[in-house]
Amino acid sequence: VEVRKNILKKNDALAAELRERFRRAGVFVVSLVSSPGAGKTAFLEVTLRHLRERWRVGALVGDLATDNDARRLVRSGADVQQITTGTVCHLDADMVGRALEKWDLDAYDLLFIENVGNLVCPASYDLGENLRVVLMSVTEGEDKPLKYPTIFNTADLAVITKADLADAVEFRRDDAYANVRSVHPGIRVVETSTRWADGLAPWFRQLEQWLATEVRTPTAVRSTSRATLP
Amino acid sequence: VEVRKNILKKNDALAAELRERFRRAGVFVVSLVSSPGAGKTAFLEVTLRHLRERWRVGALVGDLATDNDARRLVRSGADVQQITTGTVCHLDADMVGRALEKWDLDAYDLLFIENVGNLVCPASYDLGENLRVVLMSVTEGEDKPLKYPTIFNTADLAVITKADLADAVEFRRDDAYANVRSVHPGIRVVETSTRWADGLAPWFRQLEQWLATEVRTPTAVRSTSRATLP
Repeated sequence: VEVRKNILKKNDALAAELRERFRRAGVFVVSLVSSPGAGKTAFLEVTLRHLRERWRVGALVGDLATDNDARRLVRSGADVQQITTGTVCHLDADMVGRALEKWDLDAYDLLFIENVGNLVCPASYDLGENLRVVLMSVTEGEDKPLKYPTIFNTADLAVITKADLADAVEFRRDDAYANVRSVHPGIRVVETSTRWADGLAPWFRQLEQWLATEVRTPTAVRSTSRATLP
Repeated sequence: VEVRKNILKKNDALAAELRERFRRAGVFVVSLVSSPGAGKTAFLEVTLRHLRERWRVGALVGDLATDNDARRLVRSGADVQQITTGTVCHLDADMVGRALEKWDLDAYDLLFIENVGNLVCPASYDLGENLRVVLMSVTEGEDKPLKYPTIFNTADLAVITKADLADAVEFRRDDAYANVRSVHPGIRVVETSTRWADGLAPWFRQLEQWLATEVRTPTAVRSTSRATLP
């Protein structure tokens, strides 16, 4: 426990430095977390394509192994870098900082960080991001927020993915929303599908709203200490 | 790294004790691992119902929070106990040992241990089980074995779940099998669906085969040291 506390404390300090670096460069940073296979990469690829029309965007993507996701994301035309973590089940601020060493952050408006697919480990690691988005596919079951409360509690938005499969899996929408909000009261929830034309529109609306109000006025420093349940 | 090594070493010792306890009681132990929402609990509920006709079965089920899964599994009529891990992303041998303190293992032929939904953390923790089964749903994407090699490499069987959704998600069967076998050459793969009548038949055939050949002749002690990639 003591060791873990020290690791998190060190991470918090590095994340605070990153956040200051992002603020000075005027880059708005959004991280994505979810279980494996919730559709983060497909979601991010469509997002990068959409945003590139008006914004300068980049992405970092974490996985234990392979650079598959970076190769998928780079098709969007955005700058992308893969971080491979080996046996580590999450990104941390040090990995993000090192991945960005060669990047000129002034050249970006928006940076996305796709975390390792995991509903537990990434929850406690601040990456200096402005906002954290948790994705949850309709195929995973409506109870995931109850079973993995911290990751939903520390997110700023919940995105339901693969909505095109909702009928096929008899997705219980009301239960899913109620479960998300029971662990994080008041959190905004949007539903998306990368298989529908404009299937990410609810997410884009939310994102544009953030960009309009928050870019160049970054949110207060996120502390992992707020990762506590109500 | 040193701390983690000591934790794993301690876990290995406890798991060896558990394995000896299981062997003496003549109980065959199968653990299930997968990402969140791959369908472990639905799979296990159908399995317990099926086996109860001829075997004395019990189950332990791990989650960070809630006893939802135990309440689902107990409908099968089997003895079930929930283990809640708090913030820990996997079960360990100590948790399993403590959960079994009040159980008379002689009263069981088969014990299932459903781990926390996570494709990383459970890989390195021996629970004294005879066999480990990794589940992977068709909705997660065919590349999961490449991204989470250790959990597939340390499993004795790979079960593809939610096969009823294969067409809807355009599941690429050949890619999935090739990816599983590229990280674990020779591993047996079966496809299942809890929504089809007899949708678990390929799994039951495999299980009956194990039970015929292995019950009361438990496999050699599994060492986490074999959790290395080829």
